[in-house]
Amino acid sequence: MFNDFKLIDDRPVYIQLKDYLKEMIMKGHLLEHQKLPSTRELSKLLSISRNTVLNAYADLEQDGIIYAVKGKGNFVGKVETLKASSIEFNWKERLNNVTLLADEFDLMKQDIHWEKGMISFNSVAPEEKLFDVENFKRAFLTRMSLEGDIVLNYGYAKGYKPLIEYLLHYMEMKGVDISNKDILITNGFTEGLDILLSSLAKKSGRVICENPTHHAALKLFRLHGFDIHGIDMKDDGIDIEQVEKSLSEKEFDFAYLIPSYHNPTGIVTSSEKRAKIIRLFSQYQIPIVEDGFNEELRYSGSHLAPLMTFIGEGNNIIYISSFSKILFPGIRVGWILADKELIHCLESMKRARTIHTSTLDQAVLYQYLLDGYFEKYLKKAKFVYKKKYELARQACNQYIPFKRMTGDGGLHLFIELEEAMDARTLLKKCYQRGVVFYPGDVFYSNGEGSNTFRLGFSRLKEEDIVRGIKIIGDTLKNEMGS
Amino acid sequence: MFNDFKLIDDRPVYIQLKDYLKEMIMKGHLLEHQKLPSTRELSKLLSISRNTVLNAYADLEQDGIIYAVKGKGNFVGKVETLKASSIEFNWKERLNNVTLLADEFDLMKQDIHWEKGMISFNSVAPEEKLFDVENFKRAFLTRMSLEGDIVLNYGYAKGYKPLIEYLLHYMEMKGVDISNKDILITNGFTEGLDILLSSLAKKSGRVICENPTHHAALKLFRLHGFDIHGIDMKDDGIDIEQVEKSLSEKEFDFAYLIPSYHNPTGIVTSSEKRAKIIRLFSQYQIPIVEDGFNEELRYSGSHLAPLMTFIGEGNNIIYISSFSKILFPGIRVGWILADKELIHCLESMKRARTIHTSTLDQAVLYQYLLDGYFEKYLKKAKFVYKKKYELARQACNQYIPFKRMTGDGGLHLFIELEEAMDARTLLKKCYQRGVVFYPGDVFYSNGEGSNTFRLGFSRLKEEDIVRGIKIIGDTLKNEMGS
Repeated sequence: MFNDFKLIDDRPVYIQLKDYLKEMIMKGHLLEHQKLPSTRELSKLLSISRNTVLNAYADLEQDGIIYAVKGKGNFVGKVETLKASSIEFNWKERLNNVTLLADEFDLMKQDIHWEKGMISFNSVAPEEKLFDVENFKRAFLTRMSLEGDIVLNYGYAKGYKPLIEYLLHYMEMKGVDISNKDILITNGFTEGLDILLSSLAKKSGRVICENPTHHAALKLFRLHGFDIHGIDMKDDGIDIEQVEKSLSEKEFDFAYLIPSYHNPTGIVTSSEKRAKIIRLFSQYQIPIVEDGFNEELRYSGSHLAPLMTFIGEGNNIIYISSFSKILFPGIRVGWILADKELIHCLESMKRARTIHTSTLDQAVLYQYLLDGYFEKYLKKAKFVYKKKYELARQACNQYIPFKRMTGDGGLHLFIELEEAMDARTLLKKCYQRGVVFYPGDVFYSNGEGSNTFRLGFSRLKEEDIVRGIKIIGDTLKNEMGS
Repeated sequence: MFNDFKLIDDRPVYIQLKDYLKEMIMKGHLLEHQKLPSTRELSKLLSISRNTVLNAYADLEQDGIIYAVKGKGNFVGKVETLKASSIEFNWKERLNNVTLLADEFDLMKQDIHWEKGMISFNSVAPEEKLFDVENFKRAFLTRMSLEGDIVLNYGYAKGYKPLIEYLLHYMEMKGVDISNKDILITNGFTEGLDILLSSLAKKSGRVICENPTHHAALKLFRLHGFDIHGIDMKDDGIDIEQVEKSLSEKEFDFAYLIPSYHNPTGIVTSSEKRAKIIRLFSQYQIPIVEDGFNEELRYSGSHLAPLMTFIGEGNNIIYISSFSKILFPGIRVGWILADKELIHCLESMKRARTIHTSTLDQAVLYQYLLDGYFEKYLKKAKFVYKKKYELARQACNQYIPFKRMTGDGGLHLFIELEEAMDARTLLKKCYQRGVVFYPGDVFYSNGEGSNTFRLGFSRLKEEDIVRGIKIIGDTLKNEMGS
């Protein structure tokens, strides 16, 4: 007995002893009213200090697991092990359709998972080696020393005030009229969209959006029961004639658009088209949900304003964004910028569902932004990603016989093959040769896109980008007769 | 011009200059094609280094806000200020009833807010002066140095693996059979409950729970459209005869119970009653959602097992908890412990809605737990809260002419006055004398409880606890004839 007690590093010994004894008792290896070794005996037996044993016994007594009898020693107390009833539900039968749909549409459960050593173009997450861990630590320590106790206690549902003010100014500097607008901080972009979809009244029950589009948004539209009306993408953004035709024929509750670095095509909507989009949707009184995805990751020159800058004091655009894709996806902070009254209502939904977003995450992000680390990091990241981007483009041009390639920056390219080509068949063949990518059909609202795929290059080494794209190209030419 | 440029501390000067110039341009104080001062001139004018001006100009050029002409200098670029259309929606008309209900039930929007200097018994949040900020920093730095880049990048929807394993073992040590169970990490208890409610199929559409009960849970039941069937509380937990009668008469989709430190009454369900509860609900095949609220904050001896320990390999209990109330509410980490297959489905809902809970928060919490700081902190907290608890009880006994007082530990007491007394009238009178508390009716599912209120004492100084309770008592006796 007690000879299987093994210490691990870093955890206080008395807690390890306490856990160990508790486990023995819970599992019935030590029985009720059984006498425990004296503290002196046990400390000798386990080669630990007597004080450690004393601390462990005191804690166990405090928890009611053991009891002490004066002059006699310590004994195992009464531990509930009664199993009143054990019944088994089939939980799937007790879940609703939305949940079963979420399970079905969960790409993470279906992905062809890459194995070590493979070249994976799946991810559009940032390269973690770029992370500015030292300055993040610095920002953390600064904030904690300024108001550690406040950061660790409850905050406001709307968000951490200094961060809200910073972001309002940040958006104002992009040209947004913030006079009648406000911000709600969310657990990333995704929660922002989900809260909004949970709040909008369903009238036509129809959303109009780019096709293809962000698959997490498509999934949420489906889970919220919206019909999705997708519009083809031209090289300068959504096909505006198709939009006009659709608006004249059907009702829509709202539009969902990703004008800057569209996901998955990487297309940046032109300035002229932005103005047209605003005019058209305003005319039909349809609100626009603008996804600010990767707006910061432009590699080239000219200033491009978010759609929201075009409406002045209007309130017909809801802007949702986060810095996740660029900065630190592990801290989940996004925001909704919209009409003040709307934000006031969404705030109650946020409070009802998650109380508020982690104050710690918000406060550290705020300090990181305030200290100017973001700008510095962005420069470094742009430099690295731009190189990868140019390399990937060049390799695609050289090796892949595509029909169309789009991607004006960002962290990915989108490839459209000739109609007859099937990207999933290609994926299977490439997988055997150690290369994986994202089949494009998951981004389509209508089952199309079987001849498309997305190449995320952010986390790959430069040589692997070229090597991987060459393998895809070779596979296409040699095995699929492209 | 440029004479209103003012520097703040801590933010890099070049970024402040960049922001300043950008603002001048966005607001139209500097016009398109207008020449900017040379870097030499501007550095002199603003008393900053020339390098700072160079950096700011370079960034502005990169963003497309200004352009350089070789040999001529820098000029303001074309900035979109076109306001295509400005329309105004009445957003309230475009929101659904759930959102309007969330707004209506949002207690934070209705509270009598306490002012500085008042004695507020509103909060049951932890006392932030107790926070163990130094060890929290230590845990953060340890985790960051071990895997900072991983902590800051995307994690898993189910949660941070080391934390999940820690919590599984933690619950096993409470006596739970974890062989066929799993854990989903959520943004606090509230998200856990919300995800579950979003996932359960509605059959009867009815939930059975203690009355009064946790008001955030009541709000979520209402928002999810459940009918609430509340059962009175006896001093040892829910009235089991009433439960039996209800189960024999009506169908229920699930039960919601807070057996340990019931909120708001502070009642701890007895061991015998726990066994009875399990038997009864198993017999009627009704799953139990067990709220682990403040289970760790017991001040007195004997071991009390969660309901979940009673079911062995059964899967009819869903346990939801967090350490928020005790540890750090500002980091939003809670968990659902339930049947493996159920967790697998809930994981997809979690992913669809918020991708995952902040990896940073989870990782730091994990390190804090592993290092044994939690146990140490808990001891200190229990010591402080226990003193406040005893003081509050004593003061209530001395000053308040109640019909019933409950609260067996925790951070609050619950007072029931004689039927005719109205707690909200009392609150108004006490407010004038600088004391506020939480009216109890918000915890009732059926509009009852007008003669009840909750006293949270965790954040009050000892002398204010006594002073505040005396004022409530005096007001009752002198002004309300109690």
